[in-house]
Amino acid sequence: MTASEIIDQMFNNDPFSKWLGIERVEEGPGFCVLKLTVREEMLNGFSIAHGGISYALADSALAFSANAHGRKCVSVETSISHVQQVMLGDVLTTSIEEISLTHKIGIYNITVRNQHDVDVAHFKGSVYRSEKEWGAN
Amino acid sequence: MTASEIIDQMFNNDPFSKWLGIERVEEGPGFCVLKLTVREEMLNGFSIAHGGISYALADSALAFSANAHGRKCVSVETSISHVQQVMLGDVLTTSIEEISLTHKIGIYNITVRNQHDVDVAHFKGSVYRSEKEWGAN
Amino acid sequence: MTASEIIDQMFNNDPFSKWLGIERVEEGPGFCVLKLTVREEMLNGFSIAHGGISYALADSALAFSANAHGRKCVSVETSISHVQQVMLGDVLTTSIEEISLTHKIGIYNITVRNQHDVDVAHFKGSVYRSEKEWGAN
Amino acid sequence: MTASEIIDQMFNNDPFSKWLGIERVEEGPGFCVLKLTVREEMLNGFSIAHGGISYALADSALAFSANAHGRKCVSVETSISHVQQVMLGDVLTTSIEEISLTHKIGIYNITVRNQHDVDVAHFKGSVYRSEKEWGAN
Repeated sequence: MTASEIIDQMFNNDPFSKWLGIERVEEGPGFCVLKLTVREEMLNGFSIAHGGISYALADSALAFSANAHGRKCVSVETSISHVQQVMLGDVLTTSIEEISLTHKIGIYNITVRNQHDVDVAHFKGSVYRSEKEWGAN
Repeated sequence: MTASEIIDQMFNNDPFSKWLGIERVEEGPGFCVLKLTVREEMLNGFSIAHGGISYALADSALAFSANAHGRKCVSVETSISHVQQVMLGDVLTTSIEEISLTHKIGIYNITVRNQHDVDVAHFKGSVYRSEKEWGAN
Repeated sequence: MTASEIIDQMFNNDPFSKWLGIERVEEGPGFCVLKLTVREEMLNGFSIAHGGISYALADSALAFSANAHGRKCVSVETSISHVQQVMLGDVLTTSIEEISLTHKIGIYNITVRNQHDVDVAHFKGSVYRSEKEWGAN
Repeated sequence: MTASEIIDQMFNNDPFSKWLGIERVEEGPGFCVLKLTVREEMLNGFSIAHGGISYALADSALAFSANAHGRKCVSVETSISHVQQVMLGDVLTTSIEEISLTHKIGIYNITVRNQHDVDVAHFKGSVYRSEKEWGAN
């Protein structure tokens, strides 16, 4: 299976990504650029986006990117710093750097930026790469 | 303002917490126990809850707990490990330990458990405690 | 091999642990309690222990504890918060909790405390558990 | 005080940095490049450098970089992934990126590379920036 076929299989029938309104911008083995627009129901009591929104976007980018190499992956540890407030109507886009890829472990830095190209969150995630291949029976 | 009055103010008019269906179980200065039930629209393409759901629940518990001491707080860094799959219908509850509280910084460990009392995620968060007091003009 | 035999093999001929003056207090599969006394040459320019000292002690405890289950492990991600200053002459001891152990991944919380039983650092580490067994040819 | 005067004051009379053999390569407000050569006594029982060595180097780079802006800083949370083995005689150098700087909080990514320009560790650290200025009475 190609990277896009793998991500298709993960993304289609994914109710939470649908709810978030995630769009796939670009993708390949080890990377995936995602985008969403902040809606009213994603806000917290301060009228800024809940931290869970940027986290969910980055966590999806991590899962899609790591799996797109062809082997099924599970996340081991993820961390995020929210460095700028996210407002209603903001358009968030991820960029990803694969900082390490060994046989068993992949490590990724993901930056979430708004429509003004300002960093809003820095995410780091590590995954365990299982032996199971996408598309194998 | 009391801890509950502060959390009221954060929680009421919080659209994302409403969408998540978060219930407040117990709270006070430095702690807050939250609960949610996993719905269909919180699932990912594998029919398990998206990692963003446990993260959002724990991140809300962090914000409510830290602010409930009376000073306005912002998160500095958060991390989470998802250690057990979360299924449709699971009821997730947080527990929190304030592992450090200085004048300027608070650090918290939050465990998310399911209805069988099995740990599903381990979250750690640090906050900066500003000078601004809740309820001050 | 028993837990202690594995840790013997890791600890003996370990020059940095010797330099640190690490003592093994208690150990078994999945846990290891270590101790050291802070010496002059471990201090930074503020006359408090360098953050690398508590980190190194906790990182050793992680390695010994995880390997003591019998399979060779490598660390994936570690984090530490230094919450209290460590002074010359302080005696630091680790305690460890294995918060998750699956076939491939182990996750541990380690607390470093001083001789007054005050927490000085909170460390979290995840390891990948390889197929290689200790003592196998 | 200039960045270099501040780092002088932190670095001079710092016994652990001396023991590590840390050299300062380049520095200024918000950044500091450090270097060390791995010696026998820095190795663990596998004849590779103990994780505490890369951590200590990166943690020093964090402290020097953050303080070099002029205000006294304390670290809040640090994390490191060790992605490549470090051998006897390796020469490790840090590079640093200030990924966020607000009035109260600074966040930094530090990469540790060996003499072949291969990444050996990825470190992330956040600091609290106090009101106290270097050089003030």
